[in-house]
Amino acid sequence: MRWRSVAQVNCSVARTLAVIGERWTMLILREAFMGRRRFDEFQHNTGIARNILATRLRALAADGILQRARAAQRRGGIEYRLTKKGLELYPVMVAMLKWGDAWLWRADDERPPLQLMHRCCGAKVMPALVCPHCGDAVTARDMIAVPRRVATRHPGDEVRQGGSGEARH
Amino acid sequence: MRWRSVAQVNCSVARTLAVIGERWTMLILREAFMGRRRFDEFQHNTGIARNILATRLRALAADGILQRARAAQRRGGIEYRLTKKGLELYPVMVAMLKWGDAWLWRADDERPPLQLMHRCCGAKVMPALVCPHCGDAVTARDMIAVPRRVATRHPGDEVRQGGSGEARH
Repeated sequence: MRWRSVAQVNCSVARTLAVIGERWTMLILREAFMGRRRFDEFQHNTGIARNILATRLRALAADGILQRARAAQRRGGIEYRLTKKGLELYPVMVAMLKWGDAWLWRADDERPPLQLMHRCCGAKVMPALVCPHCGDAVTARDMIAVPRRVATRHPGDEVRQGGSGEARH
Repeated sequence: MRWRSVAQVNCSVARTLAVIGERWTMLILREAFMGRRRFDEFQHNTGIARNILATRLRALAADGILQRARAAQRRGGIEYRLTKKGLELYPVMVAMLKWGDAWLWRADDERPPLQLMHRCCGAKVMPALVCPHCGDAVTARDMIAVPRRVATRHPGDEVRQGGSGEARH
């Protein structure tokens, strides 16, 4: 299979990767989530080559993740703002940030430069993944993927996450 | 900046991308989270060329995300199992799945093939991102990134997520 075909695969993870899985794309979105909007800001803070940055911004606009608009201020330059679709990528960003914080800093390193704060309650915390039904914190071992079309569960329909079960997909 | 330098950047998102940001890598991890362990299973379910798959599996083992081991059963073939470090990438996977489900299926499409079920309470739900302090659901607009080294907050230290604030990084 070629990478380009991934967008057509019958799987939401694959389709998502086809949109945000190119090199640099998530770094551009990191900057967008930090409030950057202008080409030069993206370029300066990521160090991406200008031609690659231009290509990626065009793709993100075409995919409806960034909206290209003329700025009201800043002498009318072009801005790229996160759309609703783009803003909803925040959990992907937070999950990567959290994992990187936990696993990719050596003990003798400086600590990660940023921490997140919840504006409403003021706590300096990393958002956590919970079950919206019972409220319990959720890890890979706690979730099962089941085929959506099966209305009632039968033995063998379940697919254990991170386990050894054979999965239908 | 070259892509290879991204691993050295002073940012957890960039470092995470250096580990899982190659094409195909997250699709291999999707399979691992679905319980697949063998080279042929990964190959069959992702359609990745065998040489690329071999390279990616080697990298994931070198990065401590998959552990290579001889299987006790299955006639002693080689298996790749998620380590603790690998299992903790689950929130990244779930976030991508959720976003793909929400945004990448046309109305006239079939629905996404899988749904998640919380094993403990039985609810068919997507895990949600919440503040572990107050329990509220969290979106991009609710979080602020603040420099870790600043012990007390001063005006200008805050970086609005998805907002227009200038960010120090």
